[in-house]
Amino acid sequence: MNRFYLDGHRNIHGWYRKKEVIEEKEVESMKFVTANDQLGSFVGLVSNDDNMVLPLGRTDLKRNGENQIPDTLLGCISQGNAFLDKAKSLAEWADLQSDENQYYLPIQSVELESPIPRPAKNIFCVGKNYAEHAIEMGSKDDIPEHIMVFTKAPTSVIGHNQTILPHHEVTSELDYEGELAVIIGKKGRRISKEEALDYVFGYTIVNDITARDLQAKHKQFFIGKSLDTSCPIGPWVVHSSVVKNPNQLNIQTAVNGEIRQNANTEQFIFPIEEIISILSKGMTLEAGDIIATGTPAGVGKGFNPPRYLKSGDEIKITVEKVGTLINKVGY
Amino acid sequence: MNRFYLDGHRNIHGWYRKKEVIEEKEVESMKFVTANDQLGSFVGLVSNDDNMVLPLGRTDLKRNGENQIPDTLLGCISQGNAFLDKAKSLAEWADLQSDENQYYLPIQSVELESPIPRPAKNIFCVGKNYAEHAIEMGSKDDIPEHIMVFTKAPTSVIGHNQTILPHHEVTSELDYEGELAVIIGKKGRRISKEEALDYVFGYTIVNDITARDLQAKHKQFFIGKSLDTSCPIGPWVVHSSVVKNPNQLNIQTAVNGEIRQNANTEQFIFPIEEIISILSKGMTLEAGDIIATGTPAGVGKGFNPPRYLKSGDEIKITVEKVGTLINKVGY
Repeated sequence: MNRFYLDGHRNIHGWYRKKEVIEEKEVESMKFVTANDQLGSFVGLVSNDDNMVLPLGRTDLKRNGENQIPDTLLGCISQGNAFLDKAKSLAEWADLQSDENQYYLPIQSVELESPIPRPAKNIFCVGKNYAEHAIEMGSKDDIPEHIMVFTKAPTSVIGHNQTILPHHEVTSELDYEGELAVIIGKKGRRISKEEALDYVFGYTIVNDITARDLQAKHKQFFIGKSLDTSCPIGPWVVHSSVVKNPNQLNIQTAVNGEIRQNANTEQFIFPIEEIISILSKGMTLEAGDIIATGTPAGVGKGFNPPRYLKSGDEIKITVEKVGTLINKVGY
Repeated sequence: MNRFYLDGHRNIHGWYRKKEVIEEKEVESMKFVTANDQLGSFVGLVSNDDNMVLPLGRTDLKRNGENQIPDTLLGCISQGNAFLDKAKSLAEWADLQSDENQYYLPIQSVELESPIPRPAKNIFCVGKNYAEHAIEMGSKDDIPEHIMVFTKAPTSVIGHNQTILPHHEVTSELDYEGELAVIIGKKGRRISKEEALDYVFGYTIVNDITARDLQAKHKQFFIGKSLDTSCPIGPWVVHSSVVKNPNQLNIQTAVNGEIRQNANTEQFIFPIEEIISILSKGMTLEAGDIIATGTPAGVGKGFNPPRYLKSGDEIKITVEKVGTLINKVGY
C-alpha cells in the first residue's frame, strides 16, 4: 500500500524511500472510512490508490493484543492527534508485515457507511453560499448578505452507495445538492477566521437532498431537508492535511452521467474560515460536527422546467482532493 | 412521600390507602429529573409535593445490590415501560423502608440539570404556533398555513436555575419564549394523529431563548436560536399519564414577576398530535426527541418598544400539570 514511510526503511517491495517522498505519501493516504463486513462495523484507513482499507481496531488487536481504537470515527476524532499518530503507526506496522494483505481488505468487499453514521447533533448546512445558485433559486435579491444556516436531522444520514428513499408519499420534488462538508476536529467558541482551519479535522462530501415542495411549504428549511436518507455523506473523511486550501476545490455533480453542477469552492460567498468563525461566535462547535458548505448552481429546481430526481437516478458528486460520493434513488 | 401505594398497605405514617387513592397518587408523582450532588449525576423521581427526590440508581443498588438504571434519562426513556415499572417498584420499596429519608434527598440540596442534559440531536421547535404570537411578530399574514419547524443546537441546553449567558458581544436583542415541550418515548415514522400521543413519553418546559437580531439577520432561525445556554429545559419531565390533554394547559411566563405571556395550549394552531404526525411523515422520530411546541403572544419583541432581556432578569415559565422553569440572565 506504500503508506507512511518514515525514514527510508525497507518496505514490502524492498525499496528504500527518502523522507521527502515519505511525507507526500503520508499526506495522500489520510482517508478514514466507517465500514461493515461480516465481522462487524469498523473504522478504516483507505490506501493511497483507494482500493484497500485497513481496519484499524482489528490491526491494533493483532499488533498489540488489545484494541485501543474507538468504535466510531466520531470517537476517534475526539481523541485528536493521539488517534492520528496511532492510525499512522498501525499502517506503518501493517505495511512492514510479510503479508500485508492479511490486514488490508479490498474496499469493494466492505459496505461503506457514512464516515459518521450517527452524528451527535444535526448537520449544519449553509444555505445559498454560491451566488449563481442563489439566483437560480429566485433572483439576485436572494444572494444573502449574511450567512444563512439551517440543519438536517441526524436520522437522515446514509453512506456512499446507500439508497436514497424517493418518499413518493410526501414529496414530488426531490432534488440533489452537491456540497463540500467540513468535519470539526475540536471544541471551540469564538474561533477567529485566522485560526478556523486549525479546528477542522477533515473534509467529506454531502448530498443535501431536499424536498423542494416541503421546503417551500414549511418556510423554515428543516422539514424539507430532513427526510430519512436525505443526507448521503462520504465516501470518507479526508484529513485536513491533504487539503491545503478548501476554498479552491473543483466540485461537480452528475445525474445519470450528465454534469449538472460544475463549480469551484473559490466561488463561496462565505469561505470556510468565515463559516466557522460566524457559527462559533456564540455557539460552541464540537469535534465531529459536520458543516455542509452550500451547493453551487445547477440543482434540479434551477432548470426550466425543473428536473427533479426520480427512482433509479444516480447522483455522483466529485470534490477535488476529497473523493466521489455516489447514491441512487430507490423505488 | 406517599407514593405508589399498591393495595392498602401500611405506609410509613401508618395509614392504609385504598386502591382508588393509590392510583391517583401514582399518577401525580411521575416526574423525572436529572440532578447532581456530591456523589455525581443521577436520574431521580420527584415526590408528590415536589420537595424530595429519589435517586433511582442508588436506590436500586441498595435494594438489589446492583444498579440497573441507565445513567441518563435518555437511556431510561429508551427502555420504555421496563424503566417505568422499575422506577415505580423502587419508589414503592423506598417508601416501605423504616427510614425512607435515607433514600430521598431534599430537592433543594441537589443541582437540577436539564432532564436531558445532552439531547442526541437538535431540539425541534415549532414556530408561530399561536396566532396572536404570529401577529405580534409581524401581521396576520404571518399566521402559518403549514407547520414551521426549526432547530436549536444541543449545546444550547441548560437546566432549571442555571444561568442564561447574555452574549452581549453578539446580540442586543435577547428574548424569552415560554413553551410546552414534548419528549418522544419511542421510535416511529408515519405516526397517525390518532396514535401520536402513544409516542409521547412526557412533557417538560422549554424557554426558547432567541437573539432577535441574529434571527432576523440570518433569515433561517437556527443561528439566532442556538447560542450557548439559550435552551433552558426543565425542571423535570412529567410522564404523559399525568397530562391527559396536552392541548389544554395554561401556560404563563413572568419576567421579574411581571406576567408577560398568559395563554392556554388550546390556542395551538397545530395541536401536538398534528405536530408529531407531520414531523414523522418522512422523518423517523426517536425516543428522547424534544419538540418545543411554540410560544404564545407576549414575547419581548411583541412590545412597543420591545422589552428585551437584560442581565439579572428572571424568567419564570409555568405550565399547568407540568411545573415551573426558572432561569436568570447572567452578567
